[in-house]
Amino acid sequence: MSKPFSVLGKPTPREDALFKVTGKMDYLADMTMPGMLFGKLVRSPYPNARVVRIDATAALALPGVKAVVTAADMPNRKIGFRFDNRPLHTKVSCVGDAVAAVAAVDEETAREAAELVQVEYEPLPGVFDPEQAMEPTSPLVHTEQWMDVAGKQVVPRTNNIAVHYHFEHGDPDAALKQCDVVVEEKFTVPFVTTATMETHATLSVWDPAGNLTVYTPTQAPHLFQKEMAEALGISGAKVRVIGTPIGGSFGKNLEAHPFEIVTAVLARKTGRPVKMSFTRQEEFIGSRPRQPHVMYVKTGATKDGKLQVRVCRAILDNGSYNSWGALTPLVTMQSFTSMYQVPHSRYDGYVVYTNNPYSGSMRGYGNPEAVWAIEQSMDMLAEKLGMDPIEFRLKNVNQENEVTPQGMKITTCNMDKCIEVAAERIGFKAKRGEQKQPLRGVGLASLIHVGGGARIYKSDGSGMIVKLDDFGRVTVLSGASDMGQGSDTTMAMIVAEELGVSVDDIRMVSRDTALVPWDTGVHATRATFVCGNAARLAAQECKRQLLAAASEQLGIPADDLDVRDRMVFQKSNPKNRTAYDKIVRGLHFRQNGNVIIGHAFYDPPTEMQDSQYMGNISATYLFGAQAAEVEIDPDTGRVKVLKIVAVHDVGTVLNPPSLEGQVDGGVMMGIGYALQEELKLDQGQILNATFREYGFPSVLDAVPVEKVFLEGGDPLGPFGAKGIGEPATVPTAAAIANAVADALGVRITDAPITPEKVLKALRQRAEQSPQVATAEE
Amino acid sequence: MSKPFSVLGKPTPREDALFKVTGKMDYLADMTMPGMLFGKLVRSPYPNARVVRIDATAALALPGVKAVVTAADMPNRKIGFRFDNRPLHTKVSCVGDAVAAVAAVDEETAREAAELVQVEYEPLPGVFDPEQAMEPTSPLVHTEQWMDVAGKQVVPRTNNIAVHYHFEHGDPDAALKQCDVVVEEKFTVPFVTTATMETHATLSVWDPAGNLTVYTPTQAPHLFQKEMAEALGISGAKVRVIGTPIGGSFGKNLEAHPFEIVTAVLARKTGRPVKMSFTRQEEFIGSRPRQPHVMYVKTGATKDGKLQVRVCRAILDNGSYNSWGALTPLVTMQSFTSMYQVPHSRYDGYVVYTNNPYSGSMRGYGNPEAVWAIEQSMDMLAEKLGMDPIEFRLKNVNQENEVTPQGMKITTCNMDKCIEVAAERIGFKAKRGEQKQPLRGVGLASLIHVGGGARIYKSDGSGMIVKLDDFGRVTVLSGASDMGQGSDTTMAMIVAEELGVSVDDIRMVSRDTALVPWDTGVHATRATFVCGNAARLAAQECKRQLLAAASEQLGIPADDLDVRDRMVFQKSNPKNRTAYDKIVRGLHFRQNGNVIIGHAFYDPPTEMQDSQYMGNISATYLFGAQAAEVEIDPDTGRVKVLKIVAVHDVGTVLNPPSLEGQVDGGVMMGIGYALQEELKLDQGQILNATFREYGFPSVLDAVPVEKVFLEGGDPLGPFGAKGIGEPATVPTAAAIANAVADALGVRITDAPITPEKVLKALRQRAEQSPQVATAEE
Repeated sequence: MSKPFSVLGKPTPREDALFKVTGKMDYLADMTMPGMLFGKLVRSPYPNARVVRIDATAALALPGVKAVVTAADMPNRKIGFRFDNRPLHTKVSCVGDAVAAVAAVDEETAREAAELVQVEYEPLPGVFDPEQAMEPTSPLVHTEQWMDVAGKQVVPRTNNIAVHYHFEHGDPDAALKQCDVVVEEKFTVPFVTTATMETHATLSVWDPAGNLTVYTPTQAPHLFQKEMAEALGISGAKVRVIGTPIGGSFGKNLEAHPFEIVTAVLARKTGRPVKMSFTRQEEFIGSRPRQPHVMYVKTGATKDGKLQVRVCRAILDNGSYNSWGALTPLVTMQSFTSMYQVPHSRYDGYVVYTNNPYSGSMRGYGNPEAVWAIEQSMDMLAEKLGMDPIEFRLKNVNQENEVTPQGMKITTCNMDKCIEVAAERIGFKAKRGEQKQPLRGVGLASLIHVGGGARIYKSDGSGMIVKLDDFGRVTVLSGASDMGQGSDTTMAMIVAEELGVSVDDIRMVSRDTALVPWDTGVHATRATFVCGNAARLAAQECKRQLLAAASEQLGIPADDLDVRDRMVFQKSNPKNRTAYDKIVRGLHFRQNGNVIIGHAFYDPPTEMQDSQYMGNISATYLFGAQAAEVEIDPDTGRVKVLKIVAVHDVGTVLNPPSLEGQVDGGVMMGIGYALQEELKLDQGQILNATFREYGFPSVLDAVPVEKVFLEGGDPLGPFGAKGIGEPATVPTAAAIANAVADALGVRITDAPITPEKVLKALRQRAEQSPQVATAEE
Repeated sequence: MSKPFSVLGKPTPREDALFKVTGKMDYLADMTMPGMLFGKLVRSPYPNARVVRIDATAALALPGVKAVVTAADMPNRKIGFRFDNRPLHTKVSCVGDAVAAVAAVDEETAREAAELVQVEYEPLPGVFDPEQAMEPTSPLVHTEQWMDVAGKQVVPRTNNIAVHYHFEHGDPDAALKQCDVVVEEKFTVPFVTTATMETHATLSVWDPAGNLTVYTPTQAPHLFQKEMAEALGISGAKVRVIGTPIGGSFGKNLEAHPFEIVTAVLARKTGRPVKMSFTRQEEFIGSRPRQPHVMYVKTGATKDGKLQVRVCRAILDNGSYNSWGALTPLVTMQSFTSMYQVPHSRYDGYVVYTNNPYSGSMRGYGNPEAVWAIEQSMDMLAEKLGMDPIEFRLKNVNQENEVTPQGMKITTCNMDKCIEVAAERIGFKAKRGEQKQPLRGVGLASLIHVGGGARIYKSDGSGMIVKLDDFGRVTVLSGASDMGQGSDTTMAMIVAEELGVSVDDIRMVSRDTALVPWDTGVHATRATFVCGNAARLAAQECKRQLLAAASEQLGIPADDLDVRDRMVFQKSNPKNRTAYDKIVRGLHFRQNGNVIIGHAFYDPPTEMQDSQYMGNISATYLFGAQAAEVEIDPDTGRVKVLKIVAVHDVGTVLNPPSLEGQVDGGVMMGIGYALQEELKLDQGQILNATFREYGFPSVLDAVPVEKVFLEGGDPLGPFGAKGIGEPATVPTAAAIANAVADALGVRITDAPITPEKVLKALRQRAEQSPQVATAEE
């Protein structure tokens, strides 16, 4: 596509880059306020226990301690996505549940005081395996269910199934019988955590009029405002949320957490600002991991290579409470029913309570899990059909103008092209064929993901206000939340492009509920598409005002004027031009003067899914494919990723380095998911709560990532763009698993593919003729 | 006037009141930032000297000192209102001029380091009396004049007259000859200072991209942005100004000061945030006082009691540099030419350089000075005419639809009513007549002042953005600067009234150049009128959107809907009503949703005065009168103010306690001006730089102030309102002087009327028959 852009498409440093590389970025942990106290939680070492007694005498006697709070100090309201949690507990359901909290003049005193709080527990038997937890004889993690924040409609619980998602399309059972090949397999993915550089932190300040300001690295300030208000039993009108720079989030800051509510209560009680931040160990224990899944998948095809049916029964370890993470089966379901054309499907997702740490939302939100199973199944089907796995996929790709079984209306779609390019660039055919080398393999996986908003809340919109000052400086009060993905820069580029100015002229202000128009928050890869459209519309309004002013000042009809590269010019005589800021001052500095302000709210044409999970949830869908080449070390069992090719349909490239960074980061996260990362639990206790032991990929593990961006231009996207945030990490692990299977001749279906599992598979292969097998530890 | 208001006119606590009375207001002095340094100036003890040598060795050797800067580190640009000043000097022109500055890790170290900077001065002879300074033989304070910031057009100086203002109307010399009575008198007013609780402070932070953020208690953020940028030689687009809570200002924070520029340079040099704040002593030395005036006034009337002519030659002690204060003769001139109808007038104002501390702008801005002379002259004329001074005034009051000699178009005018009511309430007639008691007296003075903006800058406008959130919370991004006068609350009330919500629903955000639309800043009593109109217009736009949404949701035509007391209701059936925030959510939480945002910019229909000082500078004018009753203690000479009656034409009372507070504060300031305050100087050295020695009125000196507000409703004012900020202090001192003259029978024309002067006058009275005399110390 030819690019008429003067700003977009050109490599543009992120506005926070200089701050970060020079160490000048002040995170919440750096913030101080006059009179500020530090809070600390007293956490349960038991996964399931009743609190018998709390004695705060010694803690309160420590000089500098200003308050100790327990559950009795908390508003009598349940919290969390399904109202099953409390800020502080009298009965704990997982290790790390807090039973009390302290506030003291400095962090060290707070820590010491927390240790001085004497808590007597009565330990209870727990349940730690989700499949076991589903059995009727299993002890109940919760005995009742609240239907809303006020505790109305308390329903007794009879089992540990927090939610059951069920969707069926066509006649999957009949279809399975009619298939020529059927693959049945169990796939598992583990607990993994975001392991962000910044640990959880919050700062609460009440003003004398009873207004609360919360400083937080949230991804979704407006939803956070509502959650905090509900948890505290006050109106949302009383709560202001100010987003602080995010040192990594990936979903962990999508919702309010118990410690944030506790901190607000400590601040209210002491009448002083209170800050709380987690140690690294607390972060492992108290941050929300990605759900472990067990997926029993049956899938079948006819010998012509047409996919016929896909059935999945998924069990998710929810841990002790529901968070937004309990909603991830909606995404998993979409991939099982709608990724590749599959006429018959059934998805059953069981979100099951255990006494493990409770899981949350994390980049991809159920989709890397789904693709781990789906794309391995595709390879297995192809193998059974004796068909090239690329050819098999291409026979079944999604198409433009398709409506999927769940009612998702696909508009633009480059899935075939993504797969073809990824396969070609990795050298798929050759490396599987005559160039096949022992213990080397190639694999591929693709994806479908929402990319034009995702109406999971009553509004899917975003707003922007754009204001110009006398120096031409443009302030954007932006609904978009930059969580490190660079959306502030993308929004600035969109406004600059539309308004004909430079990115340096733009100042982004975002993530302050008092200042910026409403936005759902960053999730579902929506910022570029939804917020980008709002930014463009608001900038268009400013441009209209600018050209009207120029028309009056220059005596040229507005429709013969345009603005580009900071100059207003006459279209019919481009040499006739004036600096845009001069026009702005000309409008302002006169009698009856005016200033330029524009605003817009963009709500994408999306539908909320109905109770049958039907609805066009997004205004566009994202496609992509990644291919991996791996090599196995036969001595250590280590899988070395030699290369990743990542091909994504992005509509239009807005900021090349930002896009590339998203893909590099997503791929690295996928490599960790495939090969290394697992939060290891024993009876609810995390065994590897340090960076060293958890072992996510570091820069030393970085691999070459060849990035290809397909640009078709989405008709609804801003300047044709779609998002990329989550998709970049969705197919990586599955592509690697397929490559490992190709290298080993043995398929390992439970992530991560650790050296131990590989060595076991190598032994297995040596013992028997190579064939597909499930590696089990 | 009947009041249809639901919010306005009702006593409403200021939104900052709770913060202030609970000690929760964090001023700039309370602020900290990660890595923040403290700055300190090295000030000259000499009023006129050349800097021979600066040795920073010892200062730099002190642990914790991060930088020492001198004039060589400053941008080579002149600063100040007429480009005659420097941030740091190589030749000082007044005591307190800074020659160097340090930045260190804490305030104590900074102070110590400043003392360690060795400065060698070569003292020069100075000039300290403005009349002396005007003589051709006097040494020049400045030898050259820069015409702009870049130093273009340097003009050699031949005298110490910084500016000469001249205006003449009619034929004053001929008129004087034709008058039946003429009064000729010298009036003087002293150096007084704002003596605010908060001392000057500033905090500068540079980001790695070269953007500067300045935290400052400025009254005029947008002008400050421009001044800082010019002083630093960078674009205003690079400067963000964030106003901090103001602990008293009264004009002192109208413009940027040298120490703020020095602090920004220290921050740039060290790469860290730098804060500087003044000690109380520095505040006396380094803050800008009100100009001392010597006014030679001739005024005459015909025996029919018609005022014919007024001539004034005023000499202002400008001190060593020009600030915005050098513009105050524009206001003084207006009162001399346009207060009461006077067909012939001449004003010559000489702003004269001396080696005294340089003066600035202070509440009333030249008008209390003018009225001190004018209203005493009026009494003197009346006495000579043998006419009651009230009757004399009423014969000459300004009138509606009058155009004054300078082209000021008076629309609404209650001057006669103000005088009548003030006289009546103080019991003027009786207390001057049969009830006359020895050593007691009554006096009266009135005023004219701009009240509908004052176009002294290229724009006289103000902007507002109003945004509603889902909880109905209304954010107002307000151009208005609350400097303690309560304008945030007034703006909130105006928006609440117009939008039909409660003041508690409003959140004000102001004084941040990045966020709020442009505004000239608080000066000239303009906030209520100008910003209030902008607030009303922006709220009207939101109301339009709200009623349109309600119309759609309720199926009722928008013109049959209104909103009041937080409810949207059907005008033809008021019981049919819905909470406004429900309408807002109904608009938002749906497909194709929207949010409510409105904005407006109001530029009053004002004119900049031309080079002949002609032009309708304001959209409306303020009138008022104050009457004082005093009692003289014959033993101590102390003047006790028994009562003040303050009658002001305010158009419409918006917030009664706020209005009353403005008048109470203004009157107290006027009492200080009349009786107590004077910054005493000897050879440029301030002799009384402490609260105790300076001796402004404290709460113990408070007197009963009877406040009467006349409400006529201004056709252009928001809901009919005019301002009150400055007028409240304008006539007080003159009214007291007239009352003292009545009590003593001797007139004291040089403020303040100290016990010493009164005792001298009493002695004088005893020695001779009582008659008008000038008290001289």
